[in-house]
Amino acid sequence: MINALEDYFDRLWPITRSLTGNGNRESLKILSEIIDLEINEIPSGTTCYDWNIPPEWNIQDAWIKNSKGDKIIDFSKNNLHVLGYSTPFKGTLSFKELKEHLYTLPKQPDLIPYLCSYYKERWGFCLSHNQLLSLDVNEIYEVFIDSSLDSMGSMTVGEAILKGTSKKEILISTYICHPSLANNELSGPLVTAFLYQKLKHLKKRKYTYRFVFIPETIGAIYMLSKYGEYWKEYMQAGFVVTCIGDPGKFTYKKSRRGNSLADRAALTILDQTEKNYNLVEFFPNGSDERQYCSPGFNLPMGSLMRTMYAKYPEYHTSADNKDFISFNAMEGSVNKYLEIIELIERNEKYINTKPYGEPQLGKRGLYPTFTQTGNDDYVRAMMWILNLADGENDLITISERSKYPIKVLLPIIDKLIENGILKKYKR
Amino acid sequence: MINALEDYFDRLWPITRSLTGNGNRESLKILSEIIDLEINEIPSGTTCYDWNIPPEWNIQDAWIKNSKGDKIIDFSKNNLHVLGYSTPFKGTLSFKELKEHLYTLPKQPDLIPYLCSYYKERWGFCLSHNQLLSLDVNEIYEVFIDSSLDSMGSMTVGEAILKGTSKKEILISTYICHPSLANNELSGPLVTAFLYQKLKHLKKRKYTYRFVFIPETIGAIYMLSKYGEYWKEYMQAGFVVTCIGDPGKFTYKKSRRGNSLADRAALTILDQTEKNYNLVEFFPNGSDERQYCSPGFNLPMGSLMRTMYAKYPEYHTSADNKDFISFNAMEGSVNKYLEIIELIERNEKYINTKPYGEPQLGKRGLYPTFTQTGNDDYVRAMMWILNLADGENDLITISERSKYPIKVLLPIIDKLIENGILKKYKR
Amino acid sequence: MINALEDYFDRLWPITRSLTGNGNRESLKILSEIIDLEINEIPSGTTCYDWNIPPEWNIQDAWIKNSKGDKIIDFSKNNLHVLGYSTPFKGTLSFKELKEHLYTLPKQPDLIPYLCSYYKERWGFCLSHNQLLSLDVNEIYEVFIDSSLDSMGSMTVGEAILKGTSKKEILISTYICHPSLANNELSGPLVTAFLYQKLKHLKKRKYTYRFVFIPETIGAIYMLSKYGEYWKEYMQAGFVVTCIGDPGKFTYKKSRRGNSLADRAALTILDQTEKNYNLVEFFPNGSDERQYCSPGFNLPMGSLMRTMYAKYPEYHTSADNKDFISFNAMEGSVNKYLEIIELIERNEKYINTKPYGEPQLGKRGLYPTFTQTGNDDYVRAMMWILNLADGENDLITISERSKYPIKVLLPIIDKLIENGILKKYKR
Repeated sequence: MINALEDYFDRLWPITRSLTGNGNRESLKILSEIIDLEINEIPSGTTCYDWNIPPEWNIQDAWIKNSKGDKIIDFSKNNLHVLGYSTPFKGTLSFKELKEHLYTLPKQPDLIPYLCSYYKERWGFCLSHNQLLSLDVNEIYEVFIDSSLDSMGSMTVGEAILKGTSKKEILISTYICHPSLANNELSGPLVTAFLYQKLKHLKKRKYTYRFVFIPETIGAIYMLSKYGEYWKEYMQAGFVVTCIGDPGKFTYKKSRRGNSLADRAALTILDQTEKNYNLVEFFPNGSDERQYCSPGFNLPMGSLMRTMYAKYPEYHTSADNKDFISFNAMEGSVNKYLEIIELIERNEKYINTKPYGEPQLGKRGLYPTFTQTGNDDYVRAMMWILNLADGENDLITISERSKYPIKVLLPIIDKLIENGILKKYKR
Repeated sequence: MINALEDYFDRLWPITRSLTGNGNRESLKILSEIIDLEINEIPSGTTCYDWNIPPEWNIQDAWIKNSKGDKIIDFSKNNLHVLGYSTPFKGTLSFKELKEHLYTLPKQPDLIPYLCSYYKERWGFCLSHNQLLSLDVNEIYEVFIDSSLDSMGSMTVGEAILKGTSKKEILISTYICHPSLANNELSGPLVTAFLYQKLKHLKKRKYTYRFVFIPETIGAIYMLSKYGEYWKEYMQAGFVVTCIGDPGKFTYKKSRRGNSLADRAALTILDQTEKNYNLVEFFPNGSDERQYCSPGFNLPMGSLMRTMYAKYPEYHTSADNKDFISFNAMEGSVNKYLEIIELIERNEKYINTKPYGEPQLGKRGLYPTFTQTGNDDYVRAMMWILNLADGENDLITISERSKYPIKVLLPIIDKLIENGILKKYKR
Repeated sequence: MINALEDYFDRLWPITRSLTGNGNRESLKILSEIIDLEINEIPSGTTCYDWNIPPEWNIQDAWIKNSKGDKIIDFSKNNLHVLGYSTPFKGTLSFKELKEHLYTLPKQPDLIPYLCSYYKERWGFCLSHNQLLSLDVNEIYEVFIDSSLDSMGSMTVGEAILKGTSKKEILISTYICHPSLANNELSGPLVTAFLYQKLKHLKKRKYTYRFVFIPETIGAIYMLSKYGEYWKEYMQAGFVVTCIGDPGKFTYKKSRRGNSLADRAALTILDQTEKNYNLVEFFPNGSDERQYCSPGFNLPMGSLMRTMYAKYPEYHTSADNKDFISFNAMEGSVNKYLEIIELIERNEKYINTKPYGEPQLGKRGLYPTFTQTGNDDYVRAMMWILNLADGENDLITISERSKYPIKVLLPIIDKLIENGILKKYKR
C-alpha cells in the first residue's frame, strides 16, 4: 500500500484545489481509480441553510515581474503563491501599492503561507518573508492573475457508499480544498480512499459506509443539507479524516457528545494498541466536525488525526510538503481506522444463555479439568464475558471492565457463541 | 462607599443589639437610611414551628463595684461585659459567690468573651481572664444589672423588597443580634444594606430581591414560618451575609443541595475573579443557612463570607472590633455579591437560531475574512456559545465547558443576539 | 471463643472432605454442635440448571509402595496425597508409568499440592517435588487407591436459619469441600458457625439469617436452584465466608453490583475500624460469589476475607495448615462480620419530625444553654442527623457525609428517637 499511496500523492500534489474549480474535479477523478465515487456538481448560488455555494474559482496563471521582466513570483512554481479565491488582476504597481497585496509569515521567514479569502473579494500573493525583505522598494512591478470567479459555476463533491446489512451508517468525511499541502490536506483523501479499499474487501459489513470528499465547511454544510436529518436517525458513528499523514503519534478529538460510539471505539483501540496518543475534548473550532456537531445535528462524529491542525509549525505553510509526511505512517493510519471500524462492527451486547450460576464449561471442553490450573487468562476472560453478558454491557464495556483487550475477547466470544452459551442480544 | 460604610459602622457600633430589644429597633432605624426597610414587631410568645419568640430583653446599665465603690466592670464601657439575656440582679456577694457568674477565656486572657444565655435564665458578666486573676478574692462585691425580660414585648425584624420583572426571588439574609462586634456581626447588615443600594440602581432586574434583617436562628425560623412555603416555589438563590468585613480572602459555603444556582454562580465568579478562596461544603452548623437548608425547606441558600465564623481567633471576643475589619474589604464584598447577582441575572439558556451547521458569520461581519486568522479568542468564544446554545446549557455551563470567563462571553452573547443568531431560551 | 475455635479446628482438620462423601457428613455433624444445621442429601445426578450433582466419592485408603514393600506415599498420613475424586486403582507400575499420575509443585518443592479432578475420571497422587526427585526411576511401584464413585450416592449440604422480624434475608455462605487445609478452608465454616452463635444471641434481629454449608460451585448452584428466585426478591445482602483465618489484614471483594448494601456496610465498617485493608473490585473468578453474582441472579453478595485465595503462597498446598492461621485472627473475623451485620441491622433512613428550621433542642435538654459552647462533636453530629433525616439518606450515607462514625451516630439517633424528634422512615 505504501507505494500506491506515494504514487497517488505524487499525482495529486501539483493540482490546485480550492472550494471549487477544475482542480477539485481532476483530483476526484484521480481518486476515483481507488474509490468508486459518484461525483456531483452543486450550482453556485445554491442555498444550504445559512450559506450559499460560492462562485466557482479557477486559475490558469499568476505572476509578479520586476521591471527587467523577471518573474519574481510564479504561481506555476508553487500554487501557494496566490491567495486562494484571488480575483483576476492585471496592472503595474509601485512596491508600496503592491505590498498591500503581499502576505508573509514574519516568524517563519523562509516559508510561504497558505491563505484564502473565500467570502470577500481580494487579490493577493503569498511569499516568504525573506523574499519580501529582498524586494527592491524602488521597483515598479507588473502583476498578473489569470483567475475567474464564475457565479454560474458549481462546487464539485464526491460520494461513495459501501452497503452493509443494515441501513445504519458510518460516515467517513474528508476534504479536498487544499492546494499543494501534504498533511493538511492530501493525507485525508488518500487515507479515506485506501480505507474504502480495505472496507470493500471485508467479508461482511453490518453497517453501511458513506464516504464524502468535499471542500471544508461549505461542503460539510451542503452534505448536512442533503443527509443531516437522515443521519440524525441512522448515523452510528463517523470520523473526519484530516492531518493523518505525518509520523507523529495519534490524536483523537472527541465528538460533542463526548461518549459517542465513535469516541468509545476509537479510544478503546488507541488505549489497547498505542503506547501514547493525545486525547482532545471536543471544541467547536477545527475541521468539519464543527458542522457535523453543530447543535442542530450533534452527530456522533469525532476525528482521528496524527498531529492536529495548528499544532505543528509546518501547518498551512509551504513546509507542509512531502518531506513532512510519511507513507509508512499513512498506511498505519489506514489500518488504525480499520481497527476502530472493526471494533464498531463487532461491538454487540451479548446474552449468556445459561445465566443461572455458571454454565458448566468443563463438559463442553472449555474449562481445565484440574482445579488448580483454571486461572489462566483464557478462562478469566471467558468468565468476564459470561458474567457481563446480560444484554446491558457491550463489547467495549466488557473490555473496559475486564481489562482484557478486544483482540483477546473476540475469539473467546466466537467460541462461546459456537458452543451455544452466548448469543448476540437483540432488542 | 468606603466612607459611608465607616460612618454607619461608627454609628451602629456602640448599640447593644440582641435577639430583641431597643438596640435592634435603633439599629434598623439607622439602616433604614440606606435601605427602605419595613420594620415589624413580632410579639413575644408567638409560635414559629417548634419555637416561640422569646421575651423582649432590654438593659440600661450593669456594673460590679468593689468595696471602695469603684466600678471594676462597667457595661457602659463595653456591652460585651454582660452575658446576653442576663436577668436583672442587685446584690452583694463574696468573690466565691460572684465567681459563679463570671465568664472568661483562659486561653485568650486579654479578651472579653461574647456570651449569651437566651433560653435559660441566668445572670452573668464577661471579662478578660487577666482581670479575673487580678480580682481580690477576699473582697465583697456589689453587683447591679438593670435589665428586663418582658414576655409582653416583641422581636423586631426588618424587610425590604426590590421588585423584578419576575416573582422569582433572590433572598439576602443577614442578622442583627450581635452587640459591639465588628466582623461578626456589623459587617453583614452593612454589606447587605449597601448591596441593596447597588441593586436598586440596576437598569433592570429580572428577579425580585428580598432582604431580611433578623436575629439569628429565631429570626430565620420566623421568616420561614412566614415565607418558607412560598420560597420553596419561588426562591431561585439566596445568601446568608455574615463575617464579610475582614480583609481575609473569600470563603463560600455551599447550600445543602451542593449545586444550587447560588453555589454555581458564586463559585463561577470566585473562580474567575479571585486568585484564592476557600470552598466549604455544606454543614448543618453555622449561621442561618442551618434553618434555610433544614430538610423541610432545603432552599438554595449558600453563604459568601470572608473569614468564616469560628475560623479566626478574634471571633466572639472583644477583639472582633474595628481594628479587625477593613472598609476597603467591605466595599469589595458588596461588589463581589453584586457580581454574583449579575451573573444570576444573566444566567440564561440560549438557542442558536441557525443550528444546522455554523451560521455564516462572515457575511454578518462577525468572522475574519482571512482563513488563517480565524483562531483568535473572540471567534473561539463565539463558536463555543453557538455550539452550546441548544437550550440545555446555561451561561455558567458554557463558561465552564469553554473555559471562557463570563465577562468575555457576555458581550459576545449580546452581539449574537443583536445579529439575530442567538436568542434566550424560553421553556 | 479462641479455645473453642481451636478445639473444633483440631477435630475437623483430619477429616477428608470433598464435593461429596462421608467426610462432609462427619464435618457437618461436628459443626452441628455449634450451629443448628438441617442436613440434606441431594442425590447424585440431580439436575441444577446446567449442572448435575456428581457421583458420591469416598476413599478409605491409598498408598504407593516400593519393591521393598515400604509405603513411600500414604493417604493416611496426609489426605492431600490423593488427587481429589481419584478413581479406584490397584496395580504395579514402572516409574515412567507411575509418573504420569504424580503431581508436584516444582516452584515450591517442599510442599504437597492440593488438586482435584471432579469432572474427568482420573487417578493420581500429589507429593512434594523433592520427594518426586528422590524416587528411584528403576523401581517398580505398587499402587493402591481404595476409593469409590457412587452414582447412587448424594451430595451433603447443611443449612440453618435464624428468623428475624422480616422475611428479608441476609445470606452467609461457606464451603466444606476442602480436605486438610486450614485457611482455605476450615476457617470459613468455623467463622460462620461461631458467627451464628453471636447472631443467635442478639436481642432482636430485623432480618432473617440463612447460613449455608456447601461444597464450592456445585453446592452454590444447587442452593441457587432452590432459593435463587426467592433471593432475587428477598436477599438484602450476603457474604461468602472464605480465607478468613490467617493473621493478614482484611480484604473485601465487592459484589458485582459494586454498591450493594453488603458492599456499603462492609466498607463503612472497614473504613471506620481498620487502619488498613484491601478493597477488591468484583471479578468473576474466585469463590461462590461467581455463582451468586452470575447475571441471572446478580445478588448483593460480597466477600470479607483476610488474605485472599491465590494471594498467599501457602494457598492450595500442604503449607495451608494450622501454623498458617491464627485463632485470635479468626475470632477477630467473627467479630468483624458481626459489626458489619449490626450496621446492616441498623441501617435505616430517618425522618426529622420537626423539619421546618431546626427543632428547639435547648428546651429538650439536648443543646448547651451557652451560645459559645455549642460546637462540640455531640451537637455537630446531632445537627447532621437532623439535617439529613429526610427519608432519602440512610445511616451509611449520613456517616459518609457527616464524617461521623456509625458508633458516634447510633447513640445520638437513639436519643433523638427517644425525644420524638426523629423516627424511622417507612416507605
